[in-house]
Amino acid sequence: MTKAKTNPGNYFEDFKLGQVLRHATPRTITEGDVSLYTALYGGRFAMQSADSFALDCGLEAAPVDDLLVFHVVFGKTVPDVSLNAVANLGYANVRFLAPVYPGDSLQTVSEVIGLKENSNGKTGVVYVRSIGTNQVGEVVLDYVRWVMVRKADAAAPAPEAAVPDLPAVVDPAGFVLPASLDFRDFDTVLSGSPHFFEDYEVGEKIDHVDGMTIEEAEHMMATRLYQNTAKVHFNQHMMQNDRFGKRLIYGGHVISLARGLSFNGLGNAQFVAAVNAGSHTNPTFSGDTIYAWSEVLDKADVPGREDAGALRVRTVATKNLPCVEFPFKGEDGKYLSDVVLDLDYWVILPKATIAV
Amino acid sequence: MTKAKTNPGNYFEDFKLGQVLRHATPRTITEGDVSLYTALYGGRFAMQSADSFALDCGLEAAPVDDLLVFHVVFGKTVPDVSLNAVANLGYANVRFLAPVYPGDSLQTVSEVIGLKENSNGKTGVVYVRSIGTNQVGEVVLDYVRWVMVRKADAAAPAPEAAVPDLPAVVDPAGFVLPASLDFRDFDTVLSGSPHFFEDYEVGEKIDHVDGMTIEEAEHMMATRLYQNTAKVHFNQHMMQNDRFGKRLIYGGHVISLARGLSFNGLGNAQFVAAVNAGSHTNPTFSGDTIYAWSEVLDKADVPGREDAGALRVRTVATKNLPCVEFPFKGEDGKYLSDVVLDLDYWVILPKATIAV
Amino acid sequence: MTKAKTNPGNYFEDFKLGQVLRHATPRTITEGDVSLYTALYGGRFAMQSADSFALDCGLEAAPVDDLLVFHVVFGKTVPDVSLNAVANLGYANVRFLAPVYPGDSLQTVSEVIGLKENSNGKTGVVYVRSIGTNQVGEVVLDYVRWVMVRKADAAAPAPEAAVPDLPAVVDPAGFVLPASLDFRDFDTVLSGSPHFFEDYEVGEKIDHVDGMTIEEAEHMMATRLYQNTAKVHFNQHMMQNDRFGKRLIYGGHVISLARGLSFNGLGNAQFVAAVNAGSHTNPTFSGDTIYAWSEVLDKADVPGREDAGALRVRTVATKNLPCVEFPFKGEDGKYLSDVVLDLDYWVILPKATIAV
Repeated sequence: MTKAKTNPGNYFEDFKLGQVLRHATPRTITEGDVSLYTALYGGRFAMQSADSFALDCGLEAAPVDDLLVFHVVFGKTVPDVSLNAVANLGYANVRFLAPVYPGDSLQTVSEVIGLKENSNGKTGVVYVRSIGTNQVGEVVLDYVRWVMVRKADAAAPAPEAAVPDLPAVVDPAGFVLPASLDFRDFDTVLSGSPHFFEDYEVGEKIDHVDGMTIEEAEHMMATRLYQNTAKVHFNQHMMQNDRFGKRLIYGGHVISLARGLSFNGLGNAQFVAAVNAGSHTNPTFSGDTIYAWSEVLDKADVPGREDAGALRVRTVATKNLPCVEFPFKGEDGKYLSDVVLDLDYWVILPKATIAV
Repeated sequence: MTKAKTNPGNYFEDFKLGQVLRHATPRTITEGDVSLYTALYGGRFAMQSADSFALDCGLEAAPVDDLLVFHVVFGKTVPDVSLNAVANLGYANVRFLAPVYPGDSLQTVSEVIGLKENSNGKTGVVYVRSIGTNQVGEVVLDYVRWVMVRKADAAAPAPEAAVPDLPAVVDPAGFVLPASLDFRDFDTVLSGSPHFFEDYEVGEKIDHVDGMTIEEAEHMMATRLYQNTAKVHFNQHMMQNDRFGKRLIYGGHVISLARGLSFNGLGNAQFVAAVNAGSHTNPTFSGDTIYAWSEVLDKADVPGREDAGALRVRTVATKNLPCVEFPFKGEDGKYLSDVVLDLDYWVILPKATIAV
Repeated sequence: MTKAKTNPGNYFEDFKLGQVLRHATPRTITEGDVSLYTALYGGRFAMQSADSFALDCGLEAAPVDDLLVFHVVFGKTVPDVSLNAVANLGYANVRFLAPVYPGDSLQTVSEVIGLKENSNGKTGVVYVRSIGTNQVGEVVLDYVRWVMVRKADAAAPAPEAAVPDLPAVVDPAGFVLPASLDFRDFDTVLSGSPHFFEDYEVGEKIDHVDGMTIEEAEHMMATRLYQNTAKVHFNQHMMQNDRFGKRLIYGGHVISLARGLSFNGLGNAQFVAAVNAGSHTNPTFSGDTIYAWSEVLDKADVPGREDAGALRVRTVATKNLPCVEFPFKGEDGKYLSDVVLDLDYWVILPKATIAV
């Protein structure tokens, strides 16, 4: 009786292909969340920083940072999807489909789109597609992630293996920018970067130079703000007996730090349109200093827009290692032990050719 | 002259029975405070998390967490009541009487309702009833606490002892829920718990499972947010020479952590209606990991409501000790040294029998 | 190519007398920022704490703390003015000219008003006048600071030396209070201090008594909130090899802590009207406990106001040293090593003689 009231989370054998999970805890994102996000990551992208700048670009107000939206939508899936996860294996087809403004209330629904038991019979991989919607039902975020989840009972029969067909890269043909958005008067002095879409070349690498040290209070406040309940982030008493003896930092915290650092070099990347893939390649702990560098992987037009283009960027974050030499993988093809994030995503920049 | 401008606080002999203390620093509670509260405690009670959920339950918006209201109303009393306190001895008859919404401005008035000098002649116990009101004068919180306060002058004569008659338990007959509140469509998927009022039994114990480690930055930010000025929480230079050598954590911080943890097992406890009694049984320090468990002590109807019931709950918080065995008191009847909080309170849950 | 996209900052030889620098990243200040500011410094000045109190004084809402405005306006100048600075040497003629309310969007423009190369040929002093404006172009803050900046090329020719003529003290004749402000019903119980303008004497010294210990997470969150990008505050991996081996705390963080502490003795100092001069006399690090004391240097009327007066105050902050003996300078005329701030500024208090 005493345990029946608490949430044990789902184990691998609890997931069924096609199962729909309506997640708990709708969340109104407010100006308070935006301020905390600024305090935690130091974001300086002008569109999210000032109503005045966003109004000048045709929006109704400064939209909420795309990654804050991601973390909130993601956080809701944790109690149902990854409470018994061994590892968060990947993301795919992450698409930001509508701006979120302070006052919007978000909720998340997921569908199980793939299942594959591991050969050890103790764990399996669960693929979920999660959709975040606002209070009027508009989809603001649509993404897939897959996690390795423990079985509660190793004897439970394996489901028929089903692995979804996922795009390696999100197709820019599906990118949607707000209809009212207008970059024609984009002010590159106020935005803090003179570099338009046209100024970036495929293959170009940028060392984002700056470093940011993480404190326990910071990553825990961030992760609670997202109502992400994964125990490994919060409980030192438990983690002191874990392999590392320390609390693990939520991978999304590192993503947001890397995006914040990327301002120095990608200052006009006003929106994240999509994430193609992301790997948390090594664990991050309190006291680590995060650096980042980026490579431009591709460039694309945005449907129906002459004033904006999309850059496909790989941003790599390291711990305690400056990025002047673009650290990535070793000769063995494996990520260096200092590399903590490999994020492949699309960002939206204004075009110079249309700017007046 | 140089010290005359600062507030020395009141000493035991400064308090008079019947004395009314209008406390300083009215405080507008905003969405920013709500976000910080979420970041500090990770609350997931749906009513306070999303405007959309609160609207579906008939409220005008997501109300401010009851305990945030408590901390703000309480904080105002510190400079006048407990700046020279030796110990915060207890709470009684704490009643939440109206919801607070972001934008409401709170202030606090206290009345001295009891005085009793201790036999050592150096300290005495002061009982105050404090009332928090909003900007239109509505009472949002009414409670009694008693503290042991130093005498400035041991030779000051003892007042006639007067100890107020306080209820051991707040009578549910006085509970007031917002008139517009309507639990009939309460969505237990979104709320994150399938358990209605009827699903809890008197005597039932719940281990809330999760643990949360406290950092210095967190408890200090929380306590400053409440404008609570007790020096022991903020000044390491002073506290290094104290008995413990460390800053003490505001007891209310532990209450909020315990309430946050209690979501896992009491997820539909949408409001705190009243606190019957509360004891901070051992000190808590930065680095401690807080766990909690609860016992259902009683159940009651709420006047005029068919859709809601009240659970009387004891929530016990521990430091660095999981609660699977419900740690509480030793054979000597004293609290275990790991037990830091014993809180006896009433929470409001939707009833299943009326839900459609 | 790889470094061309990042901001190298300006070196001494890049600055030209009369040069105008429009700074990046407009910033909407919100209720979220106000809450964080309260959580970081524990401010209790009633005007900034409650809409209800500000309304009673004739304002439309609680204005944003003047120093929060300062930090935000200042932060914008860092990437252009002080990214390659060796030291922040001083402030002068800092004038707060219009209240800022949550929702206002601020931006900053600076003019180079002085240049003087140092005799070592490696650095020079740059004087900038910076003006912060809101979304309708009103000037909210106008100030001068000067910084020592490195030369990129020691062989670059020295500019003609030009040192601006700066007032040692801001003239109260230029103070502007909001037209609607009315202190006639000023409530000294709610404000938390019974002391009006008339109660302070020139030469009076006040020990603000309380101490506040700084944590890494706190000063980094503060400094990011202000979008201040100076590397020395955030990057432990880099700073471990620096002279002190530790992150330096933004001097403005100490100013805000000192102002917060000064409530205990200057509780009715409702606004900062101007800063005459400010020196960060020694570095501050995480773990330091800040104390403060103040001396009244002068008193002045405010043009056109019978209900308010201006106190010129010197507030001195120390680290790990209580201020009961008003620590300041040694016999050699130099600041004691425990003194971290010497701030000379004007604050506005209600007058008693007009209060009803």
